[in-house]
Amino acid sequence: MNTANDILARLADTLESRLPKNGGDPAASYSARLLSKGPDAFLKKIGEEATELVMAAKDESREKIIYETADLWFHSLVALAHYGLRPEDVLNELARREGTSGIAEKAARSE
Amino acid sequence: MNTANDILARLADTLESRLPKNGGDPAASYSARLLSKGPDAFLKKIGEEATELVMAAKDESREKIIYETADLWFHSLVALAHYGLRPEDVLNELARREGTSGIAEKAARSE
Amino acid sequence: MNTANDILARLADTLESRLPKNGGDPAASYSARLLSKGPDAFLKKIGEEATELVMAAKDESREKIIYETADLWFHSLVALAHYGLRPEDVLNELARREGTSGIAEKAARSE
Amino acid sequence: MNTANDILARLADTLESRLPKNGGDPAASYSARLLSKGPDAFLKKIGEEATELVMAAKDESREKIIYETADLWFHSLVALAHYGLRPEDVLNELARREGTSGIAEKAARSE
Repeated sequence: MNTANDILARLADTLESRLPKNGGDPAASYSARLLSKGPDAFLKKIGEEATELVMAAKDESREKIIYETADLWFHSLVALAHYGLRPEDVLNELARREGTSGIAEKAARSE
Repeated sequence: MNTANDILARLADTLESRLPKNGGDPAASYSARLLSKGPDAFLKKIGEEATELVMAAKDESREKIIYETADLWFHSLVALAHYGLRPEDVLNELARREGTSGIAEKAARSE
Repeated sequence: MNTANDILARLADTLESRLPKNGGDPAASYSARLLSKGPDAFLKKIGEEATELVMAAKDESREKIIYETADLWFHSLVALAHYGLRPEDVLNELARREGTSGIAEKAARSE
Repeated sequence: MNTANDILARLADTLESRLPKNGGDPAASYSARLLSKGPDAFLKKIGEEATELVMAAKDESREKIIYETADLWFHSLVALAHYGLRPEDVLNELARREGTSGIAEKAARSE
C-alpha cells in the first residue's frame, strides 16, 4: 500500500543516495545538483517555494496550492537529508505535539 | 501502528474539525484561531516558519531544524485545510513525481 | 550631489520606463523582462531575496548583506513600479512613523 | 528639505542609538527591543514582512503595499544597524549597478 510514510521515506532514501558523500551525480539529478551546491542553494529554494505557496493560496488555485506545497515539502526533505535527518523525525515531532493543545503549545514557546 | 500517513491524516482531520464552518472554537485552539482569522494569518506564518527553518539550518542545529520543519509543515496543513485539501493530495503529487527524474521535472516547468 | 533620494527616484524613473505600457523591452533589460512577466515573477523574487538576506546575515558577511539588501530593495522597487507607486511613498510612510515611538506604532497595529 | 536620504539616514542614526552597546532601552522602544534580542528576532521579521508585502501585492492594495514595503525596509535597516552598516551602503550598491544593464548584471552573477 502506498502510504504517506512510504512516499516520504522513499523520497528520503532517494535523497540520501544523492548526497555527495554517497556518490550523488550532480549531472544526473536535480536533487544531487542542489545537494552538491551546499545549504544556501536549497535553503534559498525553501524561501522561494514558501512564497510561491503563499501566492498560489492568494490565487485560490487548488491545483497550484498542491503543487507548491509539494515543492516546499520536497525542498524541506532535501534540507533534512543534508543535515542527516529524516521525515520521520518531523512526523514524530508533529505526533508529539498532538497531545498538546495548540494554544498551550504556542504559550510554551518563548514567543 | 503510528505511520506518517496516520499522523498527517489525523492532523488533517483535527484541522478540518477546527474550521469555522465545522464549529472550530477560536478561544479553545491555536489552529481554530488561525483558521478563523482567514488566509493572511496562516499564510504569513508559512513565510515566517520558512525563514525560521532557514535560520535553524544556518545554525546547523538539528533539534531546531526538526522543530521548524514541523512548524512549517503544520502551517502548510492549516492552509490545506482552509482550501479543502488534504496532505494526501500533496503526497500523491510527490509520488507522481517520483517516476520523473528531478532534472527532467524542473525542465518540464517554465523556469 | 548623489543623494539617496536621487538614486531611488532615478531607479524608479528607469523602472517606470521599462513597464510594458511604456514600451519596456523584455529582451533588452532584466527589469523589463520581470515586469512583462507580471506580479508573480517579481513577487517570488522578493521572497527569494529576503531569504538570501537572512542567509547573508547568518553568515555575518557584511559584503553579502549589502548585496542582498540591494537586491531586496531593488525588487521592491520593481513591485512599486508595477503598482504605480514610488519609493517616495514608502519613504513618506517611514517619515510619518518617525514621530511615533516604535512600540506605540506596533501597539497601534492589530498584532 | 525632507529628502529620502534624510529619512533613511535619520532612521539609521536612530537605530544606531538603540543598539544595546549604545544604551538602547528595550523597554522604551520597539527597535531597541528587537536589537537586544539579537539577529534571529529581526531576521525573522524580514521573512515575515516580505511575505506580507507579497500578500498585499496579490491583494492589489496600494495602501497595504506601501505599508508593508515600509515595514520590510524598516526591518532591513534594523539588520543593517546590527551589522554596523548604513542605508548609504545599500544605496551606493544600487547606484553602482545603475551603469550596468540589468541583464548584464544578472548574467554576471552565478545564477
